[in-house]
Amino acid sequence: MSSTKEIFIAIIGLGGVGKCFLSQLKNLSAQLSKTPTSPNLSLILISRSNKILYQKNYQSLPLEDIYDSLEKSTQSNLRISEIIDYLAAAPSKVVLVDNTSSQEIANSYPQILGKKISIVTPNKKAFSSSRKLWEDIFTAATPGTHVYHESSVGAGLPIISTLKDLIDTGDEILKIEGVFSGTMSFLFDSFAPVKGSGGTWSAEVKRARELGFTEPDPRDDLNGLDVARKLTILARLVGMQVDSPTSFPVQSLIPKELEDAASADEFLMNLPKFDAQMEEIKVSAEKEGKVVRYVGSITVATNEIKVGVEKFSCSHPISTLKGGDNIISFHTKRYSNSPLIIQGAGAGGDVTAMGVTGDLIKVIRQLS
Amino acid sequence: MSSTKEIFIAIIGLGGVGKCFLSQLKNLSAQLSKTPTSPNLSLILISRSNKILYQKNYQSLPLEDIYDSLEKSTQSNLRISEIIDYLAAAPSKVVLVDNTSSQEIANSYPQILGKKISIVTPNKKAFSSSRKLWEDIFTAATPGTHVYHESSVGAGLPIISTLKDLIDTGDEILKIEGVFSGTMSFLFDSFAPVKGSGGTWSAEVKRARELGFTEPDPRDDLNGLDVARKLTILARLVGMQVDSPTSFPVQSLIPKELEDAASADEFLMNLPKFDAQMEEIKVSAEKEGKVVRYVGSITVATNEIKVGVEKFSCSHPISTLKGGDNIISFHTKRYSNSPLIIQGAGAGGDVTAMGVTGDLIKVIRQLS
Repeated sequence: MSSTKEIFIAIIGLGGVGKCFLSQLKNLSAQLSKTPTSPNLSLILISRSNKILYQKNYQSLPLEDIYDSLEKSTQSNLRISEIIDYLAAAPSKVVLVDNTSSQEIANSYPQILGKKISIVTPNKKAFSSSRKLWEDIFTAATPGTHVYHESSVGAGLPIISTLKDLIDTGDEILKIEGVFSGTMSFLFDSFAPVKGSGGTWSAEVKRARELGFTEPDPRDDLNGLDVARKLTILARLVGMQVDSPTSFPVQSLIPKELEDAASADEFLMNLPKFDAQMEEIKVSAEKEGKVVRYVGSITVATNEIKVGVEKFSCSHPISTLKGGDNIISFHTKRYSNSPLIIQGAGAGGDVTAMGVTGDLIKVIRQLS
Repeated sequence: MSSTKEIFIAIIGLGGVGKCFLSQLKNLSAQLSKTPTSPNLSLILISRSNKILYQKNYQSLPLEDIYDSLEKSTQSNLRISEIIDYLAAAPSKVVLVDNTSSQEIANSYPQILGKKISIVTPNKKAFSSSRKLWEDIFTAATPGTHVYHESSVGAGLPIISTLKDLIDTGDEILKIEGVFSGTMSFLFDSFAPVKGSGGTWSAEVKRARELGFTEPDPRDDLNGLDVARKLTILARLVGMQVDSPTSFPVQSLIPKELEDAASADEFLMNLPKFDAQMEEIKVSAEKEGKVVRYVGSITVATNEIKVGVEKFSCSHPISTLKGGDNIISFHTKRYSNSPLIIQGAGAGGDVTAMGVTGDLIKVIRQLS
């Protein structure tokens, strides 16, 4: 352990995840300050939408009431390139915490890492967009500069760290399969429960939206892109060459006719017209004593990635999954008789922030 | 990242886990040597029972055919204190890999760590014996000296790392529950399956032993001590004060009358006389539509740890567990609606070694 006693933290994004992260950072910072040998964390920049707060001399911003201080800030906003310049000139090692889902910031990761600034983030876009961006990011992350993104798949569940451990220790990944979307998990458990009959598809989509289980426009869940992005990340970690999250079959649950509906409300109003299609899929599974679930899978040997509705027996762990949980199974050479399975809440501010904070701790350990 | 370019590895123990670890180490070493910026791993000492191989000038031992070289070694065995002296004088950082289950070596951990030698190990004894040993170990592990023991619970499953992440990021652990023994998992799945009727208890114990699912003397599994040790480790990580693995209720499945049977064979010959007891427990569960399983649980609020047979509904994930798998559920403040669950093979050379190799990688990252 070298003598780095101070690590600078910069935070971009203060939505649901960002706020929870801030609270976890306060706790972490307090914990570290109790151990004299631990590094000191200094928040040097924080920004959200059109607000920014930083001090030109890299003095630490007080974590207490930081949200209010940011709201009151009258500092002129900085472009991402200006933020990078500011962080690159800092007199100590910097970790940027990107709590946004911004493609623009994701596109800057190679540049950020190139300036020896480490990154921790739940932002899926950086790792699931073009293959070039993925390659540029990991080429730029030279020794001593880290990029961790546990929460980009399964929120705080230890999915990425487990997959990396399997690979790094020489296991051979055969297949990864699971339910990767809390929204889809909730929806299908309500629509096609193992016990009972469930509501109509459109009614369940409406209800899930009212309960906050979908994006404001449910089509952002139903198009399957969120799941496709997660599969892209895992497949790339396994070493597969994936051009983009649209370069493999992804089943969209948005009827073609409603893709261009002007608003979420218009979409939901017209969705009942298509209930018969979903009902047919459900009934066809029931006839085999099965239920339908929206899953993603990666089969390494055949280089196959797919996302969509599949049938599972009622006792299968994927079928019995409840209330918005994720479940991910790793079938490997070592875990061949039965897979290594990880299951639990895969969405929500606190558990997503936990993945970010856990990553930050790992980066700090390696920087200090 | 400082400039440590060489890390010395010393291995004690070459049984089932040790052999698999050696093969994973070869692979890891080859991987690291491909990246010029990675540290170089040098094996400087290897020992098993009454054999030892090391070079006085800390030259690297070739990994190729190392097992044969060790067998042919005529070097006089060293006491653990002599090994420590040898490692402490090494001109680079050292990681000791203890692949034994030796209490004597475990007792030396505080001394080893005190000499700035890091430790990775699947050896449960160090962390589940007296509370004093636990405290001495973690007092001795000063910054820059690491002790990792993922495989001491659930083999390669990410149990300890996940628990630590939950705690370090500020989650509150409410309850940990699960099946912690591959042997018990196999036995109870055969004896009281969710579907079908299962064999008699003594027949299933005999069969499990024949299939290699038990220790040579099955009483070493049936006394529950192995599970109690794992619970002790997890409870201590949560912050509970546990004096020893016998300081809380642990249900032994060895009939009192057979505790002193002279041999495993004598034990097995007499076990059928006690089948009625186990049958009664099984039938009583069946009357409630449930099955029996051997589980361990830690309830933090009531400071309660217990190990023994409990009843579970047939759809409970603990009931449907198959073929020697472990399952561990973390109920926490964040994972409150449904627990974070990790499941998979919890025993076997390759998966146990994977936990050790994974730990070694984490230590190397922090040392280099």
